[in-house]
Amino acid sequence: MSAPKKVVLAYSGGLDTSIILKWLQTEYGCEVVTFTADLGQGEELEPARKKAELLGIKPENIFIEDIREEFVRDFVFPMFRANAVYEGLYLLGTSIARPLISKRLVEIAEATGADAVSHGATGKGNDQVRFELSAYALNPDIKVIAPWREWDLTSRTRLLEFAEANQIPIAKDKRGEAPFSVDANLLHTSSEGKVLEDPAEMAPDYVYQRTVNPEDAPNEPEFIEITFEQGDAVAINGEALSPATILTQLNEYGRKHGIGRLDFVENRFVGMKSRGIYETPGGDILLEAHRGIEQITLDSGAGHLKDSIMPRYAELIYNGFWYSPEREMLQALIDESQKHVTGTVRLKLYKGSAKTVGRWSDHSLYSEAHVTFEEDAGAYDQKDAAGFIQLNALRLKLLAARDRRVK
Amino acid sequence: MSAPKKVVLAYSGGLDTSIILKWLQTEYGCEVVTFTADLGQGEELEPARKKAELLGIKPENIFIEDIREEFVRDFVFPMFRANAVYEGLYLLGTSIARPLISKRLVEIAEATGADAVSHGATGKGNDQVRFELSAYALNPDIKVIAPWREWDLTSRTRLLEFAEANQIPIAKDKRGEAPFSVDANLLHTSSEGKVLEDPAEMAPDYVYQRTVNPEDAPNEPEFIEITFEQGDAVAINGEALSPATILTQLNEYGRKHGIGRLDFVENRFVGMKSRGIYETPGGDILLEAHRGIEQITLDSGAGHLKDSIMPRYAELIYNGFWYSPEREMLQALIDESQKHVTGTVRLKLYKGSAKTVGRWSDHSLYSEAHVTFEEDAGAYDQKDAAGFIQLNALRLKLLAARDRRVK
Amino acid sequence: MSAPKKVVLAYSGGLDTSIILKWLQTEYGCEVVTFTADLGQGEELEPARKKAELLGIKPENIFIEDIREEFVRDFVFPMFRANAVYEGLYLLGTSIARPLISKRLVEIAEATGADAVSHGATGKGNDQVRFELSAYALNPDIKVIAPWREWDLTSRTRLLEFAEANQIPIAKDKRGEAPFSVDANLLHTSSEGKVLEDPAEMAPDYVYQRTVNPEDAPNEPEFIEITFEQGDAVAINGEALSPATILTQLNEYGRKHGIGRLDFVENRFVGMKSRGIYETPGGDILLEAHRGIEQITLDSGAGHLKDSIMPRYAELIYNGFWYSPEREMLQALIDESQKHVTGTVRLKLYKGSAKTVGRWSDHSLYSEAHVTFEEDAGAYDQKDAAGFIQLNALRLKLLAARDRRVK
Amino acid sequence: MSAPKKVVLAYSGGLDTSIILKWLQTEYGCEVVTFTADLGQGEELEPARKKAELLGIKPENIFIEDIREEFVRDFVFPMFRANAVYEGLYLLGTSIARPLISKRLVEIAEATGADAVSHGATGKGNDQVRFELSAYALNPDIKVIAPWREWDLTSRTRLLEFAEANQIPIAKDKRGEAPFSVDANLLHTSSEGKVLEDPAEMAPDYVYQRTVNPEDAPNEPEFIEITFEQGDAVAINGEALSPATILTQLNEYGRKHGIGRLDFVENRFVGMKSRGIYETPGGDILLEAHRGIEQITLDSGAGHLKDSIMPRYAELIYNGFWYSPEREMLQALIDESQKHVTGTVRLKLYKGSAKTVGRWSDHSLYSEAHVTFEEDAGAYDQKDAAGFIQLNALRLKLLAARDRRVK
Repeated sequence: MSAPKKVVLAYSGGLDTSIILKWLQTEYGCEVVTFTADLGQGEELEPARKKAELLGIKPENIFIEDIREEFVRDFVFPMFRANAVYEGLYLLGTSIARPLISKRLVEIAEATGADAVSHGATGKGNDQVRFELSAYALNPDIKVIAPWREWDLTSRTRLLEFAEANQIPIAKDKRGEAPFSVDANLLHTSSEGKVLEDPAEMAPDYVYQRTVNPEDAPNEPEFIEITFEQGDAVAINGEALSPATILTQLNEYGRKHGIGRLDFVENRFVGMKSRGIYETPGGDILLEAHRGIEQITLDSGAGHLKDSIMPRYAELIYNGFWYSPEREMLQALIDESQKHVTGTVRLKLYKGSAKTVGRWSDHSLYSEAHVTFEEDAGAYDQKDAAGFIQLNALRLKLLAARDRRVK
Repeated sequence: MSAPKKVVLAYSGGLDTSIILKWLQTEYGCEVVTFTADLGQGEELEPARKKAELLGIKPENIFIEDIREEFVRDFVFPMFRANAVYEGLYLLGTSIARPLISKRLVEIAEATGADAVSHGATGKGNDQVRFELSAYALNPDIKVIAPWREWDLTSRTRLLEFAEANQIPIAKDKRGEAPFSVDANLLHTSSEGKVLEDPAEMAPDYVYQRTVNPEDAPNEPEFIEITFEQGDAVAINGEALSPATILTQLNEYGRKHGIGRLDFVENRFVGMKSRGIYETPGGDILLEAHRGIEQITLDSGAGHLKDSIMPRYAELIYNGFWYSPEREMLQALIDESQKHVTGTVRLKLYKGSAKTVGRWSDHSLYSEAHVTFEEDAGAYDQKDAAGFIQLNALRLKLLAARDRRVK
Repeated sequence: MSAPKKVVLAYSGGLDTSIILKWLQTEYGCEVVTFTADLGQGEELEPARKKAELLGIKPENIFIEDIREEFVRDFVFPMFRANAVYEGLYLLGTSIARPLISKRLVEIAEATGADAVSHGATGKGNDQVRFELSAYALNPDIKVIAPWREWDLTSRTRLLEFAEANQIPIAKDKRGEAPFSVDANLLHTSSEGKVLEDPAEMAPDYVYQRTVNPEDAPNEPEFIEITFEQGDAVAINGEALSPATILTQLNEYGRKHGIGRLDFVENRFVGMKSRGIYETPGGDILLEAHRGIEQITLDSGAGHLKDSIMPRYAELIYNGFWYSPEREMLQALIDESQKHVTGTVRLKLYKGSAKTVGRWSDHSLYSEAHVTFEEDAGAYDQKDAAGFIQLNALRLKLLAARDRRVK
Repeated sequence: MSAPKKVVLAYSGGLDTSIILKWLQTEYGCEVVTFTADLGQGEELEPARKKAELLGIKPENIFIEDIREEFVRDFVFPMFRANAVYEGLYLLGTSIARPLISKRLVEIAEATGADAVSHGATGKGNDQVRFELSAYALNPDIKVIAPWREWDLTSRTRLLEFAEANQIPIAKDKRGEAPFSVDANLLHTSSEGKVLEDPAEMAPDYVYQRTVNPEDAPNEPEFIEITFEQGDAVAINGEALSPATILTQLNEYGRKHGIGRLDFVENRFVGMKSRGIYETPGGDILLEAHRGIEQITLDSGAGHLKDSIMPRYAELIYNGFWYSPEREMLQALIDESQKHVTGTVRLKLYKGSAKTVGRWSDHSLYSEAHVTFEEDAGAYDQKDAAGFIQLNALRLKLLAARDRRVK
């Protein structure tokens, strides 16, 4: 790789990415463009602008954007159409944000004439893979600089020394080492490392930042209704809302009722297991609701096919292959299934759980006339079941007869 | 089908199967053998013996058996090795019991010289399919009589008339119609029909029979530890227990904490949707725990393969294909994966939820040396990630270059 | 089912469907509409008109249509985009024609005010299922009459008696029984039954009707080029042709070179095995060519996903679920993959085989710069492979270490 | 990686691996152990011993073994039970040999106290991955040296200079560069590179080394019978033979009739496409025969499940994951299916094709009584099909009714 001349950095304004910024300037002598995004992580962005200016970034090279609506509309919602969960439990909150960040990095690179992008993910995790696969898929000629894989600032001490040597301001609470590492966006907060590294040990309470402890949640359940159109949530309690607003409100419901906590050991794409504490308050509610509306609007053939490809779809997102032909093929399949996933779900929120307790839809496939215990109105002839069973049984009978014959 | 001469009936001792018993005697003039099983449904079996005798069954034709251990050991536990859930949420509590009942029906038929078996499932549901596919798979020459598909006793009134005309005792509380229908065994209780037929309406509280309402559960969480060996639970809080005893104890924990309630609309094999209320108190805990121990003992390749075939496996069980070559093939695959699924999980039970909060095992694949945020001890070279990403990205780059070229 | 009043019959003009026509008139006293389609089966259609008139069908109730282009464009080609083969070998020639016939039957019923459709498939085969599932999926209220499952004309003798009694003309060569049964359309000819019923016995030469014996094919190979656009064949040897014309020409090439013969035992949806002799001369060539063009234009992620869902897709078509949400979902996935499947394949046809010997495309993903044995031009850094392997190996090493530890 | 002290080299005796041998001695100063295996590649092994001695290898460090029986019995046959083909066409001839070579390398390393293994595969191909993943899976502490990724002998000229400088004898025909690269074992011969690098160009005749040109094959077909037991071939024309002998004889049949040639562009695991010419004469026959015997002995549920997982299984072998839990899980599934895959297939071999023309077995599931066109003997009641279709159609009707309702 030839030396980069101008690099777009995913910049949070925090200490680590400020060090990276400086390191890029000094190590590569290259011009740095910063990109700071509001993905719903709950931090002010303007301080990042100030800090970037302080570190010598030209105003026209500072990009600060609120991309929450795009995030939910084009990434979170399509993923939730699939009921995607990784390894049975994880709602992919970090995974789904990375492709969007990379997309903007590449677009800004193209707009500013930069030949490289850079990120602050380490060489042990999944995020480096997600950032870089996305970047290369969108621009095959882009260079990617991953300082954590390159530099020798591999201890806290050396990082702080570098910061001091380069006049990077260090917040007081950043002098000591954080007891764990955090990633957050509108969909979730993940915590991992340090005090969480022993998967046998229960995570300490202070790790949870986004949800109350279920024990501290209200003693009374709360009921809400979520309305879907073609697989996407469009309203809460009858009020039409934008995608990001819906997720924001669901997060608030989830926070209050202690919903969406997960203590999880997962398999990273890079080959090791890691333990994380995830909080996905609105996501947990949304997943339950989406399953609820699919229960009455989705046909069994469609649903079973979706279920069978879901693990592959989730794995692709987890591993960073959002911008791959196979993810797009699966998305086409999933989206095709959602045309009639329209209707409303009623949920009970209580002490850590969101549970569907009712669902209705003009698009419902549920037929009381067919299923009723009441005397038949002619919709269904029970005698048909005899033939159905006989022909389903035929091969089993032939197998049993063969087994008896050859024994 | 020629007329059956001797038929083994799955006999609960209740009104409906007593009517069937009589109907078989009168309609087919055939000798009836009764089979009454303790599958953990929580009912006394001896009254069934008395009632069968009263209806003229010879003592040697009355079979009453406690098959709870076989049920859990050979059916429930193998299924839980797969983390099987049907349509995302249902733990298959009814489905998994049917093949065992059919197995005993067929075995008793062979032992008593009967040429037919009979069951009390209706022509609208899944259970008829499960009973009959199992029976045919085990004995291709057996006859199956499904009275509900044949007779004209299609209303409550006519059933009661038939019962009265045939001196079948009717318990007082059976005169009126039950507000819903129930199936129960050691794994779960399901309720459906009548008051539950509108999926928009919340199920009334009195439907739940096996779990307290989460609101009424203890205000303090309770922690338990479940130990697994090769994928099966073998101990609770360090005490080694038999399979059925484990499930019984977990049911008690679940009942107390309101765990395992599910309000669900599912797709029946016979083509219609139906709504059920399921309670699987011990099963919900067991599934969570099994996932917890797999998190540290199961390799990602193994786990992802398991996840990808699970929906098919669950569908086979739901549809009644327990005794099919493909279920057995999938079981071989699943069992192969469980050799090292050994260790202990700590769970928090609270107000409707069971959550893994810790897990440990001598067979663990979790490597703190690899995942640690601490300075590397040499277990992992972050630079390897660069090559890993480059080669994973290569095809994406070639795609992007192609897209640019042909546009 | 209430009695049908007007029925649209899939009418070939042959003896069997003429008997059905008469039987519908006499048994149900209903008005009959005939539908005779040219699907490329190689028979004149006008005699069917004459015969229908002779049997009392009003001119406005006789529908005769050439639907070959629609057949190839909307059914055969979409299926070939998937490289669909059933049970490893069968190209689904009969299966793919049934949904189109049903579609026209239902459309004609709606146009003529008929309330029922009828077909001449027996109760043992797949075609009844395909016809009827398609009809019900397109019109949930349509009635379907399957005379072979209803009537008592279950022997050749009784059929002929019925024909004679009803003045149905019987061609001389139809007096005796055919030695096997045939279905044909532009994609294939299938033969089964009678002399073919013992799967141990080689099929006699006279069974093959559409291809020369490879031994009698030319002693010199012939080379042709097929051009694809977005997954569909559009030209042969550089000449742009319509879908049906392409298949017709490929059939001629295949016939001449003895390509496309298959002696096959398959699993019917209704539970039994059957043996068929299939001839798919053009289809075999087309499948090979499509695979050839995909080799250079389809990405591995896309291709492997397609391969993994293909058996399910083929099974759906075989079982008659063309008009199902899951087939449409899979089609969406497949079609999404074909956007760049554009280019030309060169094939060698010789004595029963069609083999790709060259392929080229502006959309090619093949990169000589990457794969070359020549000294690297920098496109690929071999050292990346070390990291790629290390991270792919990591979990295997952790497994091996665990196995050593616990032994 | 610390420097290796003793290394086991996969040594062919040819120029390239002799250079590697010398390079290991000089570059790492380590003791070299050579392993030369007869996998059926058709070369004498004893010259490799002489050459190794000449290059200073101690006699006790020279391992020469005939592992053809193990290769076919434990690798080729298990793979053929799955009907494994990669990307629709490739029989995995090279892929399947690598894990066995690695297994012996690791075993010899453990027996001789070596701490490393080495191979002659380049950094661009799949074989490096297969060798190394296998080695690490079998011994997590082994070191692997891949000289082609490390050294600077990256041109033919420099290789020859190194050889001359180190007194490595160079056969006259090795002075010039080979026009393509070859790998061979008992299952196949693959050729790639150089003259084959343009996938548009037909491969020259001289590339084919293992089969006659179909045009030059006998003008008369030949018929053979292959007998299987539990999925493995055990006899040809009634003569019981060992696994390797069977494959050897089938290779001879295939060679003679020009069977098993494949011109293929595939997707390498490392991300690029490559073009190869494969010859798998015996393998092609064996695959066709195995499919033939499965047609009558394998149930549809078992067969369709096998078909659905086959692409994943083939991909695992192709990518080098033979020794992975997921391959072993799939193998358990496959082997479970083969218990009754016992019987005999008759094949016609002619001018490039092997085609099943008959098959029979005591374990057959084919039932003439069920399938016959003759009047029913009562084995099958056609009326059952009506109920079978009605219940399969039910959901499609509900869908169609919904679609009409909401439009």
